[in-house]
Amino acid sequence: MRRQAVEHNIECIEIGKVLGSKALTVWIADGGNFPGQIHPRRALERYLESMHVIYKALPDNWRVFLEHKLYEPAFYSTVINDWGTSYYCARELGPKALCLVDLGHHAPNVNIEIVVARLIQFGKLAGFHFNDSKYGDDDLDAGSIKPFQLFLIFNELVDAELCSVPYFDPAYMLDQSHNVTDPIESLMTSAAELTRAYVQAHLIDRQELTEAQEKCDPLKALAVLKQAFTTDVGPIVAMARERSGGAIDPIATYRASAYRQRKAKERPAEHHVSAGII
Amino acid sequence: MRRQAVEHNIECIEIGKVLGSKALTVWIADGGNFPGQIHPRRALERYLESMHVIYKALPDNWRVFLEHKLYEPAFYSTVINDWGTSYYCARELGPKALCLVDLGHHAPNVNIEIVVARLIQFGKLAGFHFNDSKYGDDDLDAGSIKPFQLFLIFNELVDAELCSVPYFDPAYMLDQSHNVTDPIESLMTSAAELTRAYVQAHLIDRQELTEAQEKCDPLKALAVLKQAFTTDVGPIVAMARERSGGAIDPIATYRASAYRQRKAKERPAEHHVSAGII
Amino acid sequence: MRRQAVEHNIECIEIGKVLGSKALTVWIADGGNFPGQIHPRRALERYLESMHVIYKALPDNWRVFLEHKLYEPAFYSTVINDWGTSYYCARELGPKALCLVDLGHHAPNVNIEIVVARLIQFGKLAGFHFNDSKYGDDDLDAGSIKPFQLFLIFNELVDAELCSVPYFDPAYMLDQSHNVTDPIESLMTSAAELTRAYVQAHLIDRQELTEAQEKCDPLKALAVLKQAFTTDVGPIVAMARERSGGAIDPIATYRASAYRQRKAKERPAEHHVSAGII
Amino acid sequence: MRRQAVEHNIECIEIGKVLGSKALTVWIADGGNFPGQIHPRRALERYLESMHVIYKALPDNWRVFLEHKLYEPAFYSTVINDWGTSYYCARELGPKALCLVDLGHHAPNVNIEIVVARLIQFGKLAGFHFNDSKYGDDDLDAGSIKPFQLFLIFNELVDAELCSVPYFDPAYMLDQSHNVTDPIESLMTSAAELTRAYVQAHLIDRQELTEAQEKCDPLKALAVLKQAFTTDVGPIVAMARERSGGAIDPIATYRASAYRQRKAKERPAEHHVSAGII
Repeated sequence: MRRQAVEHNIECIEIGKVLGSKALTVWIADGGNFPGQIHPRRALERYLESMHVIYKALPDNWRVFLEHKLYEPAFYSTVINDWGTSYYCARELGPKALCLVDLGHHAPNVNIEIVVARLIQFGKLAGFHFNDSKYGDDDLDAGSIKPFQLFLIFNELVDAELCSVPYFDPAYMLDQSHNVTDPIESLMTSAAELTRAYVQAHLIDRQELTEAQEKCDPLKALAVLKQAFTTDVGPIVAMARERSGGAIDPIATYRASAYRQRKAKERPAEHHVSAGII
Repeated sequence: MRRQAVEHNIECIEIGKVLGSKALTVWIADGGNFPGQIHPRRALERYLESMHVIYKALPDNWRVFLEHKLYEPAFYSTVINDWGTSYYCARELGPKALCLVDLGHHAPNVNIEIVVARLIQFGKLAGFHFNDSKYGDDDLDAGSIKPFQLFLIFNELVDAELCSVPYFDPAYMLDQSHNVTDPIESLMTSAAELTRAYVQAHLIDRQELTEAQEKCDPLKALAVLKQAFTTDVGPIVAMARERSGGAIDPIATYRASAYRQRKAKERPAEHHVSAGII
Repeated sequence: MRRQAVEHNIECIEIGKVLGSKALTVWIADGGNFPGQIHPRRALERYLESMHVIYKALPDNWRVFLEHKLYEPAFYSTVINDWGTSYYCARELGPKALCLVDLGHHAPNVNIEIVVARLIQFGKLAGFHFNDSKYGDDDLDAGSIKPFQLFLIFNELVDAELCSVPYFDPAYMLDQSHNVTDPIESLMTSAAELTRAYVQAHLIDRQELTEAQEKCDPLKALAVLKQAFTTDVGPIVAMARERSGGAIDPIATYRASAYRQRKAKERPAEHHVSAGII
Repeated sequence: MRRQAVEHNIECIEIGKVLGSKALTVWIADGGNFPGQIHPRRALERYLESMHVIYKALPDNWRVFLEHKLYEPAFYSTVINDWGTSYYCARELGPKALCLVDLGHHAPNVNIEIVVARLIQFGKLAGFHFNDSKYGDDDLDAGSIKPFQLFLIFNELVDAELCSVPYFDPAYMLDQSHNVTDPIESLMTSAAELTRAYVQAHLIDRQELTEAQEKCDPLKALAVLKQAFTTDVGPIVAMARERSGGAIDPIATYRASAYRQRKAKERPAEHHVSAGII
């Protein structure tokens, strides 16, 4: 089974070369549903052993992204269950191995922007599977539940960008499940939310922020962040979109175009649920 | 402030030498209550810088235990907030630095026995602040809320013992807060609970367990663990205690001795709450 | 849609009459994935309106069980999201409406035995969907993750039994998803775990417990519970099973019988996953 | 003890009459640290018995607010542990009894705006202890951690206001602990955050929202909420403040006034931590 999985990953690399890809994401649905089912140390050894083979097959200018997940499908423990395990493995594998952060793969109450800051500092941030969640790996649209958390994550990203932190080159992906919305609309909205958070994070007065931090003035530090977060960047982002050939209001434009209705007619009817990485 | 803290730790080492201690535990009540208050990367750099100084002052046969804690007193983020951060720091500092696990310092739903297994595997388990909790860092008596979790932790410890995992030499401490019980009684009960879990973990038929794991038979694997967990080791532990000069029923003996009442008379009355590490 | 759902429930009652059933469980996969998607007050009004119709169709000697669930499939909020909402609805509907507790349908850290105690006290406990979980609605085998919690739930049930609490007549069901085990084996193991918890709860010395409670002696109170919980009732339960015509070791007997292998040969091969209420 | 507590509450009512108060908040630090310590049904009976006496002493134009809290100081279970229990008690006591919501007193992941919507619908919302939290009852400044949640709570409040829901007359209080900030500054900031959320909730186009809900268009419904939430109401709120005699920038004005420094000089130095309800 493991050999098959390793070969499958190597085949993916081969296909990726043809497609011009530069990275491979590995998420393994490994683990146990019950105490005793797996031996934690042996399971991780096997994972590492297999990953070493995949790592070796990686072209020099590629990177491999390790994705951790607290639970599901394994309900007692997964093998790459948290960022600490993911970091250990990435460090063991070598410089081309990095840690991917999916916003829905953490325990309740975990401070995800701090996880991001750690991986930035340790030179191991692969990038993101963006989405949002209230309970578990809910895979909701980015920014729909915790927009301030998304802004605080981008605060760390923009800070790293401005500080030219070494090995900082994150890949941004959406990994969402659109069960009650038109997936195309959800993707447009999610992209707009990420843009908003990124632009707002650039509005932070970092000199003022650093001063507040150095003076131990937390109220001021928070106020500097909030000044950026409460600025309505919608209009300027819309103008930028328009200047680059896009729509002022993408959802309204898309709906007016009746694209979905046209495509629905062209295709044979099929009942399915859109899910997964896009 | 940092210089003062570093000097205080070095002074503790000096006192420890006199007392015959061999380890220093460092838990820093660092962090921020609000987003922006601290700069995560700089705060961790400062921690590491200070810890390098303390590490240097450590005698060769000593170890330093890094204690992480998700929150409290800092309510937005602590600096050593999870085992991943603790592990990174221990690895940066050197072989004498290890990670201490307090059972109450994790996010909700986190699988603590897996955290323990990871630190064992990475050669970085310092040991434990044993206690129990339902909500946060509740510091309740060991085994009072989640006795099966305690057993599963000891399963990992005994497995490491039997496998002679390198660098495995954990320190066992109680860190509890006895607000509604006699602290002496709580300590006796907690020690008994740890003994029970340790003895039960030794009852696990590890050959059968390994076979069940290799055959992908999770029901059997869990049954092997449960066979040990449901065995009532109370009588045999009581006999062992008696043979080594202790009491069959320590609480009953202690209560019959009226030790507390005698001591209460000898001491001037004072209203205080027992708390902290014992 | 609502009319269709109501009619479906009424049809279920008709079928139930033929089958000799006496209860209907209603769980509605209602709710929203995003803030704003549903209007919480109107959604609950509609639920109640529909339930009143179903309630009216209920024979006099039937009961209707309302099942709440924190999340899934709705990921922002379900309509019957917690026991408080379920209780309100059961009270509004009338004496035949009761609240069903599925152990996996609560927020992290919630004290489920207290929820059970409340519903007992308010005369509204319908019964259980037994299972176990570490993270969400994991639907694992009863007692596999938190056996002490299961015992504490049975402590409340047996206490209610012994006190002859009015309206106390809970229905016991298993609602599990057996993805990595033989479902028949999981059902046997789960039944044994429930029996164990029930028998252990009957071993509690309730007079001693009450005395400890009245004397404000929490250490003793916990010790009384632990005395029962650590008693190995396995042998006596096995003997009782044998006397009533069952097997001493049901799993071993089942495996030795090769029932599964025989049935697998008789049936055409099909790949499917066993899930849901049994 | 209970008699003393009841008398204390009645004395508070007497003092309140003199002060012109119209409400009494009752939060009882009751419960147990260990399983078995309290008998859940008897503990709740005693609470209700005592509350009936207090309720009787309440003047006709007063209300009594019942405050629930998941844990702390009791770490196994409190007596009024969740809104369901609080609601039951309020209903048993009578129309003058209502349920107070402290934003930090819920289990992780609980949807607090839905709890608010329920209490509004059941005619039992007393009001709020506003604060914010990431982990437990952190008592941080309102809106500092989850500003979107605060907005969604005000969405429910404004909706109830506009719909003239009966018995809707919530009391707004701040219950925060200012450990790293000047309490006066934190109070000013918190008041501004509540105002912002209230004004933004009034900006929601409720006709559009209702239409989106009726048409099952969740993306549009969320967009309507987000349109209001991302509108920067800071300037208009500042102008309103100025017109009513306040400061455009209260923190800057307060700091420039050197009020704190003056008062600090006038008072004898004392080390203390500001905490609790203000």
